[in-house]
Formats: sequence, C-alpha cells, structure tokens
Amino acid sequence: MIIALAGGVGGARLAHGLARVLPPGELTVVVNTGDDFTHLGLHISPDPDTVLYTLSELADQERGWGLKDESFHAMEALGRLGGENWFALGDKDLATHIERTRRLAAGDTLSTITADFAARLGITQHIVPMSDDPIRTIVHTDQGALPFQDYFVRLHCAPSLASLEFAGVEEATPSPALIKLMTSDEVTGIIICPSNPFLSIDPILAIPGIRPWLQGRKAPCIAISPLIGGKAVKGPAAKIMAELKLDTTPRAIAQHYHGLIDGLIIDQADSAEAFGECLVTATLMRDIADRERLAREALSYLERLRQA
Amino acid sequence: MIIALAGGVGGARLAHGLARVLPPGELTVVVNTGDDFTHLGLHISPDPDTVLYTLSELADQERGWGLKDESFHAMEALGRLGGENWFALGDKDLATHIERTRRLAAGDTLSTITADFAARLGITQHIVPMSDDPIRTIVHTDQGALPFQDYFVRLHCAPSLASLEFAGVEEATPSPALIKLMTSDEVTGIIICPSNPFLSIDPILAIPGIRPWLQGRKAPCIAISPLIGGKAVKGPAAKIMAELKLDTTPRAIAQHYHGLIDGLIIDQADSAEAFGECLVTATLMRDIADRERLAREALSYLERLRQA
Repeated sequence: MIIALAGGVGGARLAHGLARVLPPGELTVVVNTGDDFTHLGLHISPDPDTVLYTLSELADQERGWGLKDESFHAMEALGRLGGENWFALGDKDLATHIERTRRLAAGDTLSTITADFAARLGITQHIVPMSDDPIRTIVHTDQGALPFQDYFVRLHCAPSLASLEFAGVEEATPSPALIKLMTSDEVTGIIICPSNPFLSIDPILAIPGIRPWLQGRKAPCIAISPLIGGKAVKGPAAKIMAELKLDTTPRAIAQHYHGLIDGLIIDQADSAEAFGECLVTATLMRDIADRERLAREALSYLERLRQA
Repeated sequence: MIIALAGGVGGARLAHGLARVLPPGELTVVVNTGDDFTHLGLHISPDPDTVLYTLSELADQERGWGLKDESFHAMEALGRLGGENWFALGDKDLATHIERTRRLAAGDTLSTITADFAARLGITQHIVPMSDDPIRTIVHTDQGALPFQDYFVRLHCAPSLASLEFAGVEEATPSPALIKLMTSDEVTGIIICPSNPFLSIDPILAIPGIRPWLQGRKAPCIAISPLIGGKAVKGPAAKIMAELKLDTTPRAIAQHYHGLIDGLIIDQADSAEAFGECLVTATLMRDIADRERLAREALSYLERLRQA
C-alpha cells in the first residue's frame, strides 16, 4: 500500500497519476479537510472533492476546480434571491454538497461518505479524509483572523499571511482508515504530494499522532516540491513563503519537512538548488501522461530509498 | 385589500390574474404550507414557490411546476452519487430551497423569507404562508399513512385516500400578516382560489381561528370551483372526491365550503349543476388573458355581493 498525502489540485493530479499506475486498492490518498467549511448551510469539502473529481476524471481541467461540463444556474438564481454567491458552486457540484450534508446530519462520517462517493464515481483506490473530526484552517493576516475560504476565495489570498491555525486539531484524531495504516506493515511508501505545504499538508501533520508516525515509520517517505523555478504552479505557496520570510526554494521545502521525509523530488527548473537527497525531474503535470510519468518516478524513487 | 387563499398551480394562476388587475399592494395571497417537507436536508415549500414563481412570471407553463428554462444537472449528479432523486428539483429551483433552509436555520420565519423572495423577484403583491408553524399534511390511504409528497409525487396519488390529517395544526397559529388581516377593516373581499379543496384549502381552514374568522367576517367571500365538467383541470381533486364518496359537482364543492362562502364561481361546463348563489363562467386559465378575465369576474362578483 502506498499512502499519498494531498490537498487540492496539484496533490490531486499526482494522486491521479498514482491511482492509474498502481493496481486497484493499493493507493490510499489521505486528504486535507482543513479547508472544509459550512456555506449556504452545506458542508463543503473542497480538497476531498477535488481528489474525488480528479481521480474519477470528472474534474474540469481549465478551471482547476469543480466538475467539467458544469453549469452555474443555481448560483445565478441564488444571486437573484439575495443569497451569497461569492463561492461559486456548480449545479452538479451542489449535488455532492447536498448529499454529503444530508448524510452527515443523518450520522454518517466523512470517511464513510467519501468512500461511498468514490465507489459511486468508479474510483478503485482509497480516498480518506485526514480526520472525521472538524478541523478548520484559520488564516491570521494583516487584516485579522480569516476563515480559510474567506482568505482563499473571497479575498483571493490578498491579505498578508502571518500564521496559520488549525482550529480543533488538538481534539482531532486521524480518520479510522488512516489510524489503521499508521500501524500497518503493508505500507511500502509515503508520498507527500506537491500540494501547498502550509495550507494543505500542515493541517494533516498537525493532527496528534501524525508527526510521531512519520518520524518513526519504517517505509520511506518522499515529498514533491510544489515549486517550479521558485514559483507555485497555481495558488499562493510562493506568496505565503515570502510572507513567512522563507526562501521560495526546494531547500526551504525540505527544511519544512525536516525529519519527516527521506527524499525530495524537485523540478528541473530548480536544479541549481539541488542538494542532499533529492531527485530532479519535470514536475509540471499538464496532462495524464505527465501525471503517470511523475507517479512512476516517485514510486521508483521510493523503491530506491527502500533498497538503500 | 383582497385576500386570496391558494394552493398550487390553479390557485397560483388565479392569484396571478388578481395580482395583475389589482393595484400593487392590494392583494394578499395566503398560501398552503401543508405540502412543505424536508427533503435532502432542504426545506421545500411547493405551494409558496409555485405562487412566487407564477406571480413573478418565472414559472414553467407546460410542466405546471418549477421554473421555466430550467435544467436538472444537480439531480442527475445526485443520482450518480446514490442520492434520492425521485423528487425532481431544478438547478435554479434548488437555490430557493438552499437559501430558504439557510435562513430558517438562521432564525428567520417562513413569512419573512417569503416576503423577501417575493420582493427580490419583483412581485408587488403580498405572499403570505398560512402559518410560520410546521403543519404537515398526512394522507391516510389504503396503503397506510403517507407524508404528502410520498402520496403526491412518489406514488402519483395512486393509493385510495381515506382521510387527511394536518399534523401540527392544533398548535399552529396563522402567520402574523394573516392575523393582522383577520381583524382589519381594510379587507374588501376574500377569494378561495380554484385549488384542491381537500389538499390545498383545508389545511388553511384547519388552523385554529380561521373558520371562525371566515364565518364572522364582514367582507364577502367567494370560492372558485376547481372542477370543469366534473373533472379537475390538473391534480387528483376529482379522484379524491370519488374516494371520499362525494359527487364531483360544484354542489359538493359548495357543500364543502358551507357557511364559509357567500357565492361560488362554477365553470360553464357545469352549468347544468348551477344552483343558488353562483356565477357561471369559463374558469379554464390557459393564458394570462384568461387569468386576468377570471380575476376581473371574481372581483366584480365580490363587488356585487358586497352591494347586496
């Protein structure tokens, strides 16, 4: 079993590559739920949905979020009624949030619902929320403390980030499937996907028990740097690193994951920054072939580290 | 002020005619909420929505329910996820239910929400739910007790109806605007729209205080028979009347409203059944001109009764 820790788009794309090159059932994608929020009375899980939609090949490629062939009629009608429509929810996407909200209210866990949705969408790998407990990312900025989606979507990451808080994380436990994997001999490698280390991966690492597990694990663990030529492919990773007074280099990423990983995959555009235990390759994933190639390289790298 | 008591399509169409021929603000449509239900975690108010959509001229004409130019992408996606999609909710329509549910959870009343939606949709007349308290129509049938929408939509009214129950009605009060009108000198006439007397009007009449008000009122009250040639234009009125061992005649309708109305408008197809205080005219409303004509005739009839 390979475990991939993932957030939104970048993580989902590598997870998709891994899902395609690994035999069915041999990948578990552990997904950030710190971006989850309640909006319009609906429980929205942006990162689990991005992973679900990407692995089922229903994701929109251009937009980078939501479903392909999507319409936004409900949002237009909501605006007409005076409702909040700054967070664009497509019509088909709405069904996911409505059904998840209904099932949560009926007592189902996020884990069960996510697994059922994955099966319904024809996904043969495991998708596991990092926790079934509510963990909410709060962004402390020069404009005060902001719920994640206010910072990310409503304000387009414009406020300068000072620190991050994962509200509720101290009381949270990893999801049942993750707990099981943390003590399983069947895990042969762990991959931290090229997701935003601060917004997408740190919430997972903040759950009690996760860091000790990664520090004490037997299987090798690698991360893929989300930077290409010192910039993020998408999203605010580079902006945030600058605001946190970090260099936007693979070295800073490696430093961030210090003690947790055995190796780092960095992009060829950053090869001048190469150091210690790293693999330099093309990390940009434009199409499915790119995703599969990077997935294969990551798995080979894990294999090499396992032999070492 | 004219008060119209209405349920779904037929009632909404006459209310639309009345809204167009009366000056702005001089019509109050009191709408049945016995068909309201919670579905997919959303509070759905079928009759208030039909009135909102019809008066704002956004209703679909062919289908007889929902919005025109509607899509059903969310329902298709819901089916894909294993959700319940037997009750078809259009994408634009969903926005109404999502926003209403959100506002109810935030503590707003059905009255306030309905008034706000009406204003947002450009409606210049008053639309008032019969009550802000939950009243749920239960249909007792040969297949047992059924929630209204199970009987009406899921089972297409196939079970034989034995009796109706309006659960919660004993503890309910009329909505604030209706209470105000019940003691107002400004009411110049009351019209019971050509809605189903048993499913749409009886829930209104069952609210404590409504029957005594109608029995003691000064302003004239008329009803429009929903039957044309002994048949319902749409819906199960005639089927239900047969199951309740009633003749499907205007006389049975008049008998049903005995003591509450001063006159009945019946269709020319039923003219052989004419009796006592009634007005015979064409009651089928195929287009807006029909609605306006029937509205004008109803208002003239009220005026005549007021003079008498």
